[in-house]
Amino acid sequence: MSDPTLDFWFDFASTYSYLSAVQIRPLAAEASVKVRFRPFLLGPIFKAQGWDTSPFNLYEAKGRYMWRDMERLAADLSVTFRRPDPFPQNGLLAARVALFGLTQGWGEDFSVAVFRAQFDEGRRIDDDGTLAAIVSGLNADAKAALDAAQSGDVKLRLRSQTEEAQRLGLFGAPSFTTARGDLFWGNDRLEQALRWARREQ
Amino acid sequence: MSDPTLDFWFDFASTYSYLSAVQIRPLAAEASVKVRFRPFLLGPIFKAQGWDTSPFNLYEAKGRYMWRDMERLAADLSVTFRRPDPFPQNGLLAARVALFGLTQGWGEDFSVAVFRAQFDEGRRIDDDGTLAAIVSGLNADAKAALDAAQSGDVKLRLRSQTEEAQRLGLFGAPSFTTARGDLFWGNDRLEQALRWARREQ
Repeated sequence: MSDPTLDFWFDFASTYSYLSAVQIRPLAAEASVKVRFRPFLLGPIFKAQGWDTSPFNLYEAKGRYMWRDMERLAADLSVTFRRPDPFPQNGLLAARVALFGLTQGWGEDFSVAVFRAQFDEGRRIDDDGTLAAIVSGLNADAKAALDAAQSGDVKLRLRSQTEEAQRLGLFGAPSFTTARGDLFWGNDRLEQALRWARREQ
Repeated sequence: MSDPTLDFWFDFASTYSYLSAVQIRPLAAEASVKVRFRPFLLGPIFKAQGWDTSPFNLYEAKGRYMWRDMERLAADLSVTFRRPDPFPQNGLLAARVALFGLTQGWGEDFSVAVFRAQFDEGRRIDDDGTLAAIVSGLNADAKAALDAAQSGDVKLRLRSQTEEAQRLGLFGAPSFTTARGDLFWGNDRLEQALRWARREQ
């Protein structure tokens, strides 16, 4: 019998997705669960809920809390956390490059590196240069990757991926879905989602 | 040196507050933290955010997820969970009785019993009879309690308590605040809040 799988849905602008991105591979290996990285865009999903930006910007008390919460969680995990400016960053190009990279074998490392660039090193991730440097650092062809990211095929796949997220009932990030479609929302549910993925098998 | 304290802020209609209410006393005892029960009303706080009911009713995908999430969490904790009808219930009277009970030594037991009546036994908590039966079950005077709950003094105290919650930055329930005012939101943060309360000392 093959390992159970868990889909890891993330948006590059999402603070709590960062915490999952840096933890999920070792935790999944320990749990013998195969993880699939699924970048998607929260923007269209928020728009469908009537929001034109992050709820952390729309709801002041919630936003203030989130920054403090992230600070404490990152400290507990010994992970550096820097507040991005602006927030949220535009993760569209990064998501497209990631989708292409996932077909090339370097998409997971790229995704984790984009999260680190933004939340650890304080870099902007809507910048071609930042993304190109990350791709090159993974010994892949940066120009080919950025060209592919702008192709109709990749654009369409990102759109389908976001529509699939919506069909699965996602309303925030990170989220996790098991093969049977059980949904878990938030970095707080990462361990539980891994347990459920195993149990389903 | 006395034990550190943690304030436990809850709204009787809140599903996740139920999970904290049934767990917090044993967990706090284990952590040697003294807990103060602080009933308040989410209604005015939601209203300030522009919501006229629970966000779980306003945002369909979020609501659907919450019911599934509660089901799984309750199962993990071996706690019965029944979906109340209607949702959210009106917890105003229960909160007033609880506030009075907290001055009489039976407020914590009463609060836990109200949560169980609603989420375990499927009873309505806006009903005088339900609340009176709970008070009597705690060997207290039900008539005196319901009269006191309608007094100007208790009404005012519930209002001040809700205003204090808002000043502390609360935007949901359950929430926990340490003596220094550090805020933790959600049943998922209960253990972390207890650790922080201890660490502050």
